[in-house]
Amino acid sequence: GFKLGKVCPYIEACDIVVGENTCDGKKKSYEILSGLLKDFYVIDLPQMKSDEGKKLLKQEYKKFMTKLEQISGKKITADSLKKGIEITNAKRNAVKRLATLRKANPVPISGLDALLVNQVFFYDDPVRFTESVNKLCDELEERIKNKVGVFPEHTKRLVISGCPMAVPNWKVPWIIETSGATIVGEESCVGERGTQWITEARDNTVDELLDAIVERYFQIDCAIFTPNPSRLEHIKSMVKELKADGVIHYGLQFCQPYIIESHTVENSLEADGIPTLRIETDYGQEDAGQLKTRIEAFVEMLGNK
Amino acid sequence: GFKLGKVCPYIEACDIVVGENTCDGKKKSYEILSGLLKDFYVIDLPQMKSDEGKKLLKQEYKKFMTKLEQISGKKITADSLKKGIEITNAKRNAVKRLATLRKANPVPISGLDALLVNQVFFYDDPVRFTESVNKLCDELEERIKNKVGVFPEHTKRLVISGCPMAVPNWKVPWIIETSGATIVGEESCVGERGTQWITEARDNTVDELLDAIVERYFQIDCAIFTPNPSRLEHIKSMVKELKADGVIHYGLQFCQPYIIESHTVENSLEADGIPTLRIETDYGQEDAGQLKTRIEAFVEMLGNK
Repeated sequence: GFKLGKVCPYIEACDIVVGENTCDGKKKSYEILSGLLKDFYVIDLPQMKSDEGKKLLKQEYKKFMTKLEQISGKKITADSLKKGIEITNAKRNAVKRLATLRKANPVPISGLDALLVNQVFFYDDPVRFTESVNKLCDELEERIKNKVGVFPEHTKRLVISGCPMAVPNWKVPWIIETSGATIVGEESCVGERGTQWITEARDNTVDELLDAIVERYFQIDCAIFTPNPSRLEHIKSMVKELKADGVIHYGLQFCQPYIIESHTVENSLEADGIPTLRIETDYGQEDAGQLKTRIEAFVEMLGNK
Repeated sequence: GFKLGKVCPYIEACDIVVGENTCDGKKKSYEILSGLLKDFYVIDLPQMKSDEGKKLLKQEYKKFMTKLEQISGKKITADSLKKGIEITNAKRNAVKRLATLRKANPVPISGLDALLVNQVFFYDDPVRFTESVNKLCDELEERIKNKVGVFPEHTKRLVISGCPMAVPNWKVPWIIETSGATIVGEESCVGERGTQWITEARDNTVDELLDAIVERYFQIDCAIFTPNPSRLEHIKSMVKELKADGVIHYGLQFCQPYIIESHTVENSLEADGIPTLRIETDYGQEDAGQLKTRIEAFVEMLGNK
């Protein structure tokens, strides 16, 4: 849609667009998108965490390296790759630091603002982004020390779990944070799912560094993997760490992997006594009123515990 | 659903249920189904027709062979595997023979009856099935010789393309064949997509035979592969061979791979002057009246060409 409307400057300005075969919705829409772009490159991904899946992914990374070398005219060396890993790890560590500060009560930052940081993660220059987030964290630490929060101390604390929320999709967080609750963590592709793991680059050849990148990728508990039990553990540990009162599971219409997992997630969390609200929505505003009613009722129910 | 209602005797009677990671809908629903069955086994599949994808599939077949040996207590040898390939090829050749006889005008068999044969392909004992289909074909050849058809000669001829229609889903073919048209071919997983290719088992070791099975699998133009251009060619060649007047593209709700491909299919067929009607439906009967109106209008339009 952004491409057809020419409203995304990044797509218009770039030399290459890269997609990866995660879910059916993405992989098949690339077939339509590729006809509209001058250079569209697809990275294939495995669906199971098997040894063969690892081999497939490593081979795909190697092919992609060659493609990057072609379009950039620069050779990827062990040193440049290691430098890239360090920059990306520093970026992930900065958002992990931010995630940790949200344990405080009262919360030093709203869920909506924290989401924006996690969204900008995908766009900004990585070094500049890391500096900005660390600067923000310094300020938040100051707030925590002075017991300054953006919401009162008794505000209900929620974790959002499920599908990514891309810019400018702030509908659900906005409704939650105007309904008597605050969001203390995002178990989502925009949030902890993509940022919690750093690449353990202990070794030094390109081949060994690629292995480390593959290893990191295989730790991600995205719903495109089957089965995907570690995601459940991660949601529960976030609830515990962040002292959350409940979970809102957010599913985007037609995003089958998360919508199908949502049943398992709800059953498992409720069995552990964690109140869970499962919502399925889209990018439109039509259901905002209905969502507000449901979310307010859920937050009120948490109050009666 | 069949499992929860205990209405499928095959599931209740079997020792093992095997699924394959085709689309998101299937792969994720297995996670729920596996908890309800005593032994559920998943075969992973590649998403792109790459060399790494072939390696992954071969490895998966090897693992599955071991699993089959465990539960059956029988060793799979080159001879037994070759025998199995021959039985399956004979079965595929029988339905290919049936497909060819539908070129005749008037058509010797209705699309609804031919679909039933293609549906039973998945259930019946393969040797008995092959015999039955060949006996049916003998009878149809007799009909063709005598110019006996199930519909008049001027009846509009359609190809159905898209998602599978499992037993007892006969809604759309029934509507089509009571609306002035007949179905002469199924470009579908229940139909030509799964049956048109035989396994070219020229060599003799288990390893070489597995390679042949992998090669055959990689010829299938299922929408789970990306990209999937050969499917378009196949639909067009079916239209030509079967002297069809048009195509109805059948999409099942939530089956993203075929629904997303349907745009490309419609554009490409219409560009070649092949009238195409794109429908999206489900297993319910609620839309039967609306579908009948649309299909009748489409068939009438074909008459005005």
